[in-house]
Amino acid sequence: MAHSRQLHLGAFMRPVSMHTGAWRYPGAIHDANFNFAALKRFAQKLEEGKFDAFFMADHLGVLNMPVEALKRSHTVTSYEPFTLLSALAGVTERIGLVATASTTFEEPFHVARRFASLDHLSGGRAGWNVVTTANPDNGKNFGYEDQPDHAARYARAREFYDVVTGLWDSFADNAFVRDAESGIYFDPDRLHVLRHKGAHFSVRGPLNIARPVQGWPVIVQAGASEPGRQLAAETAEAVFGAENTLEGAKRFYADVKDRMRRVGRDPGLLKILPAAFVVVGDTIEEARAKRAHLDSLVHYDSGIHSLSGALNFDVSGFDPDGPLPEIPETNASKTARDRLLEMARTQTLTIRQLAATAGSYAGLAFVGTPASIADDMEQWLYESGADGFNIMFPFLPEGLDLFVDQVIPELQRRGLFRTEYEGTTLRDHLGLPRPSNRFFD
Amino acid sequence: MAHSRQLHLGAFMRPVSMHTGAWRYPGAIHDANFNFAALKRFAQKLEEGKFDAFFMADHLGVLNMPVEALKRSHTVTSYEPFTLLSALAGVTERIGLVATASTTFEEPFHVARRFASLDHLSGGRAGWNVVTTANPDNGKNFGYEDQPDHAARYARAREFYDVVTGLWDSFADNAFVRDAESGIYFDPDRLHVLRHKGAHFSVRGPLNIARPVQGWPVIVQAGASEPGRQLAAETAEAVFGAENTLEGAKRFYADVKDRMRRVGRDPGLLKILPAAFVVVGDTIEEARAKRAHLDSLVHYDSGIHSLSGALNFDVSGFDPDGPLPEIPETNASKTARDRLLEMARTQTLTIRQLAATAGSYAGLAFVGTPASIADDMEQWLYESGADGFNIMFPFLPEGLDLFVDQVIPELQRRGLFRTEYEGTTLRDHLGLPRPSNRFFD
Ligand SMILES: Cc1cc2nc3c(=O)[nH]c(=O)nc-3n(C[C@H](O)[C@H](O)[C@H](O)COP(=O)(O)O)c2cc1C
Ligand SMILES: Cc1cc2nc3c(=O)[nH]c(=O)nc-3n(C[C@H](O)[C@H](O)[C@H](O)COP(=O)(O)O)c2cc1C
Repeated sequence: MAHSRQLHLGAFMRPVSMHTGAWRYPGAIHDANFNFAALKRFAQKLEEGKFDAFFMADHLGVLNMPVEALKRSHTVTSYEPFTLLSALAGVTERIGLVATASTTFEEPFHVARRFASLDHLSGGRAGWNVVTTANPDNGKNFGYEDQPDHAARYARAREFYDVVTGLWDSFADNAFVRDAESGIYFDPDRLHVLRHKGAHFSVRGPLNIARPVQGWPVIVQAGASEPGRQLAAETAEAVFGAENTLEGAKRFYADVKDRMRRVGRDPGLLKILPAAFVVVGDTIEEARAKRAHLDSLVHYDSGIHSLSGALNFDVSGFDPDGPLPEIPETNASKTARDRLLEMARTQTLTIRQLAATAGSYAGLAFVGTPASIADDMEQWLYESGADGFNIMFPFLPEGLDLFVDQVIPELQRRGLFRTEYEGTTLRDHLGLPRPSNRFFD
Repeated sequence: MAHSRQLHLGAFMRPVSMHTGAWRYPGAIHDANFNFAALKRFAQKLEEGKFDAFFMADHLGVLNMPVEALKRSHTVTSYEPFTLLSALAGVTERIGLVATASTTFEEPFHVARRFASLDHLSGGRAGWNVVTTANPDNGKNFGYEDQPDHAARYARAREFYDVVTGLWDSFADNAFVRDAESGIYFDPDRLHVLRHKGAHFSVRGPLNIARPVQGWPVIVQAGASEPGRQLAAETAEAVFGAENTLEGAKRFYADVKDRMRRVGRDPGLLKILPAAFVVVGDTIEEARAKRAHLDSLVHYDSGIHSLSGALNFDVSGFDPDGPLPEIPETNASKTARDRLLEMARTQTLTIRQLAATAGSYAGLAFVGTPASIADDMEQWLYESGADGFNIMFPFLPEGLDLFVDQVIPELQRRGLFRTEYEGTTLRDHLGLPRPSNRFFD
């Protein structure tokens, strides 16, 4: 089937992988968290596969978990995004570089400046994953006893975005004339002093950096709540979805694009990229066996912690090899909980079996052959569940290499993915226009 | 003369040069501010010359100057230090990378994390130039109407340093066991939660990154005031001096090292590196002619602004070709002012001539042949005016290339400078020990 649309692919990267068991998988690079040579190799391989972007998630602290689970986690410590992505900018040519930065615990001047700098360094490849930082413990690293509440975080995020984009527009694109003869370096009439004064920020400006190559780095968002979707509809150019069924993804897709229409934005200006965990095998059975092997590497102490978290009820005191006790109702998120309760009932699983499931990756997964994975992706694209995916590799380097060497060619054969980068910037890859400067034409 | 001691050399970099006229000099790369290829070439050339470090100064805003001077300035806009130095980390192997970060307008958690990340990315080459941000306008970009006062800035800086170094010590060096067999990634007994509560900061910790390769990135400082020197004596491992006579430098050197003894620190643990502007010629006359040519490229509008600033009195309304009027006494810094007044009197210079001097570089300069420059440096080292220098190149790439190709070999011939890097970290280059972890041995 010929598509006019093609997939957009981000790589949702943690150095060792998102999966809790991945570092124990045969061939894993145990120390990839602090092994720049490994990260460089991953980024260059993704670029060989013509990925739109290398995306780096981020948290502002060590996650709060019981020490028995914590000591088994390889995701707790790694590089900081601005520094890692800048280093990768120096050793890659085309791939986009999306860094996560918090609107709750950062200053807009610094954020505007660092993304502008990354955009200049990389020749227009920067993207900003705007997060409000949901983890309640992170605030304790920044002088807060309690996390600011959800609505307050989103109100601050909206104003933060206004300040950052306003600062990016400090200089007109043609401000720098650099005329050695007359000695004029830039045209002061093409400099705008922001003088922002709002409820959360007072920022004079101008930014001490030329307008980014892309005008603005690409705005990315991942909030799932009402205000999260609204912020995405008003501001985002790419959204990382977290739906794990096609039906849910279609509803999410339609909802966000509807919200865009209601605020007067063209829905084509935002790409929806659900996070997808992809395991590649020569046969579907082999892929499933790899995943089962990987899941088996999640230690019980990690799994039971995840299970208790998903159920919002501590089950660590019960017999691992017995059935799940009666679980009380909860006000917390129910998606993962209901799925686990359903599995426990229909498959009569023990606590140990449920812990293995809960501790491994529970979201959208495509586990199969290059052809079956391409079929799934094609369907999601075709049925407007996605404009592409934010791929999570189960283990590195193998999972990444198989994706680039086997799935990408299959997608290319079907006309679903580019065979060459057509432009040089992340906006080019995503098919997004360069924003005009609000102060200059 | 054989020395047991050798010079340490930093490169005090702005992409186009520190000198206001440099971008108009023949061969200058006008757009080096946003030309990563040029910066990469400069860093690699410095590494070929075995420099200890690439040092990047920083300001948190566009400097406040009259528009007639501002529009001629090439130093106003450029890359941000963490992003630039991280990108350079990816394309260099040995040279140290010193970034400026403000204790007044940053958060200690972010600063600790970014330097730790840069240190890991670069294999132990990071240094932190601790500044309190003297420019009163920068605060307006961070919600302050007025700059916090000098004493308050230094009190905050001292506590900021304690928090950052405490966070760097979050994990013992041997915390990460990564035992795939047992599934234990790190030893939780080798993790320390800081729980800092002080007058300025409340930071729980731990830092979500392993202890830096160097233990701590190298601490650099450049404050000249009483509290600045005291902070240096208590915390710094390298100081960028700003004295421009050997006599003054010797007093500064002795003062800072005395202060170290008084707080119980070994004076060998701090290297004093005055900033030095170096112009290389085949003859002394040629070097002077280059400098004169460079100075002549400073536009009158820039020069008169600098002259008024140095005198703390606006002289822009007077006849450029007439003499200086009577200048009232001032409470501002008098070093530059007194030198200019003395020049005006003894050499009967016009305002235009004085503006040319004030607008060009007025600090310590070595202008001559490789041999005469090496003589000067040798004397400063030998007479304990310096442990080395933070070199400013008058124009790029020529000034940098001449230094590496001609001055470095002359220093090497005299045994005053390394011919090969002996270690891999910035601490190795500077001859500084790796700090022990305050919470673990
Ligand atoms: C694919 C994906 C990636 C995310 N990455 C991050 C991240 O790197 N850092 C972060 O603090 N939150 C991250 N989040 C969390 C979201 O930013 C958001 O806080 C969360 O989805 C809750 O949404 P809400 O605050 O709108 O309820 C991510 C979410 C998704 C779905
Ligand atoms: C060689 C040198 C480099 C400096 N670099 C910076 C810099 O990059 N950013 C900055 O804000 N201040 C910089 N300064 C200024 C000092 O941090 C300090 O504010 C100034 O010397 C005044 O010192 P005081 O605050 O102790 O009076 C530098 C000073 C010198 C001598």
